[in-house]
Amino acid sequence: MTSCSGTDLEYTGEAQCGAARAGRLRVRGRELLTPAFLPVGTYGSVKGMAPHELSELGAGMLLANACHLHDRPGEHTVAELGGLHRFMGWDGALLTDSGGFQVFSMLDIAELDDQGVSFRSPLDGRKLRLGPVEAADIQLALDSDIAMVFDHCPPLPASRDLLELSVRRTTDWARRAQAHHARHNPRGQAQFAIVQGGLDDELRARSAAELIELDFPGYAVGGLSVGESRAELALAMTRYAPLLPEHKLRYVMGIGGPADLLAAIAAGFDVFDCVLPSRNGRHGTLFVPGGNIHLKNSRFRADREPIEAGCDCPACAGGWSRGVLRHLIKAGEPLGRRLCTAHNLRFLHRLVARAREAVVAQRFDAFLADERAVYTKG
Amino acid sequence: MTSCSGTDLEYTGEAQCGAARAGRLRVRGRELLTPAFLPVGTYGSVKGMAPHELSELGAGMLLANACHLHDRPGEHTVAELGGLHRFMGWDGALLTDSGGFQVFSMLDIAELDDQGVSFRSPLDGRKLRLGPVEAADIQLALDSDIAMVFDHCPPLPASRDLLELSVRRTTDWARRAQAHHARHNPRGQAQFAIVQGGLDDELRARSAAELIELDFPGYAVGGLSVGESRAELALAMTRYAPLLPEHKLRYVMGIGGPADLLAAIAAGFDVFDCVLPSRNGRHGTLFVPGGNIHLKNSRFRADREPIEAGCDCPACAGGWSRGVLRHLIKAGEPLGRRLCTAHNLRFLHRLVARAREAVVAQRFDAFLADERAVYTKG
Repeated sequence: MTSCSGTDLEYTGEAQCGAARAGRLRVRGRELLTPAFLPVGTYGSVKGMAPHELSELGAGMLLANACHLHDRPGEHTVAELGGLHRFMGWDGALLTDSGGFQVFSMLDIAELDDQGVSFRSPLDGRKLRLGPVEAADIQLALDSDIAMVFDHCPPLPASRDLLELSVRRTTDWARRAQAHHARHNPRGQAQFAIVQGGLDDELRARSAAELIELDFPGYAVGGLSVGESRAELALAMTRYAPLLPEHKLRYVMGIGGPADLLAAIAAGFDVFDCVLPSRNGRHGTLFVPGGNIHLKNSRFRADREPIEAGCDCPACAGGWSRGVLRHLIKAGEPLGRRLCTAHNLRFLHRLVARAREAVVAQRFDAFLADERAVYTKG
Repeated sequence: MTSCSGTDLEYTGEAQCGAARAGRLRVRGRELLTPAFLPVGTYGSVKGMAPHELSELGAGMLLANACHLHDRPGEHTVAELGGLHRFMGWDGALLTDSGGFQVFSMLDIAELDDQGVSFRSPLDGRKLRLGPVEAADIQLALDSDIAMVFDHCPPLPASRDLLELSVRRTTDWARRAQAHHARHNPRGQAQFAIVQGGLDDELRARSAAELIELDFPGYAVGGLSVGESRAELALAMTRYAPLLPEHKLRYVMGIGGPADLLAAIAAGFDVFDCVLPSRNGRHGTLFVPGGNIHLKNSRFRADREPIEAGCDCPACAGGWSRGVLRHLIKAGEPLGRRLCTAHNLRFLHRLVARAREAVVAQRFDAFLADERAVYTKG
């Protein structure tokens, strides 16, 4: 018996080119072609975007945050309203993050011990409690397709002692989360483990080995893209992807710029999430071939060109000029944020789809070299 | 010779029932069925809504504010970007307000004299100047279909002396605006006059008579819906609509709640604008038969019903429940604001379309009695 019993998830590799993979995920009747980028809807909505628009932009799986939804409106309210798919108006695949990263990186921690964390609500300051069992319960109530275990994710740089503690705790919490999840999972939700260990190769290998021993149906690498250089990040991804089982989905958390995404795919990861495309979009920072453009720059004041010629996103194909989008962004108009978010998401989904084609066609190396020459500034 | 020369606008009455009218406006090749509600895009965008969505919701004419667009991004930038239609991505009819109401009601006025007003930019506090000629020039540069003259619109309550001064100045400014406009209008823009006079019937009659003497192609009643009671407003509209020429478009400014709209149509007005449906929507206050509902109210926490059963707006027809929309509004999610704005706009456009049908079918009185019984709380 493995802990995967009761989990309705299957990952099928379709092609490999170097370390880069093309595959297909099936989870609870929903299909996802991989590699795939996951737009982030922290509170159950990707800021400004309607779900059908995300689908049209190429999204097949979304990410929502269990910790934030626990805080507001509460997982039981989501359940009363029909579960997270219905709540988000999203019939595609849905992954919930446990909140480990948010709790350790962004929130005001009151207490941390071997059972979990007490912290202050980002909303109203009231005391909340999150641990491996609580995080599993929240995500079972939300009824996402894929739940993440609650991990100990210390902000970097961290001492080796702290990293070692985080690995030990993460394994311990994963074991407890798994045991709890296996007993309370009537609808086939999958639960993924998260490898920790900072930039310490030995700790990463230990964390991965301990978690693989527990036989989760999928694995993530957490705690990256937290301030290290682009080169460090790419190197880390190249080293840590092979630590994960080859026949299971590999998820690297928090990766979202075009160049980082390409590095993640090249390293052998299958799925990625990040707030970057939507956050950047809201501020008028736009992905284009050759690097980002910053619409607030005065040189775009009367620019009648689209963000990116030939792009099929609602902003570019809809005839919105850089000059008009600049005005909308500067005036704080939600339509501008929405159109710029759409462009950035479409840009990433197109990039990932082209990477997939290149893997399938066994020409990923050439694709990567071409793209890297273009996107290194992304 | 009339000052209407050079104006490409035609209003055709189609039916009348009591004072209520059904008509058709043709302006520079664009058609609008009246009565019609105009959504407001102060800075060139109805907050959160894409233009094609406004069209789908039933909008045929939008309003933008010349004063705000002068401040940001400047009318010359709009012109460089192809004019206001292109700037807004809107091919329907387009009316620009002169900014008189905003300057006098909301902004920090530095100086007021017979030539116009100096005031502080709401954006950065720099000194701006607006008068009849400036407002006409701004709107000519924006290239809207219908421009409004710059009027003196004192906040109410105002002394009779001030109201009398405002009427005299409004007529004088209208004369100057018209003379200037006639010499600089190569593309058939229409310019409408605005009747002032507060709630003083004699001054309203004087203002209307003086402006009619100038023979504008359309007329508005300004300075209403600024704090008077619903009954006072309805009575004022009933008295002031007949002061305007019968064969020209009649516009009452700043009217937007369901009950006030019905009163405006009953009084004989053809077009109306207001930020109310979009502003209310953003705050979760929604038009429904029987009065507004306030989504922030805790009783909607787990409400799985749509805002309004049978409504064909994107929120109601899209399966969004009150409970989910409540969460999105409370979490400040732009998708919630967008869906709630869409509902309120659709609600008004449906109401106005039904009023038009009733006028055409010569059963407006019965329609009004039925609707009033329902919307009096609107």
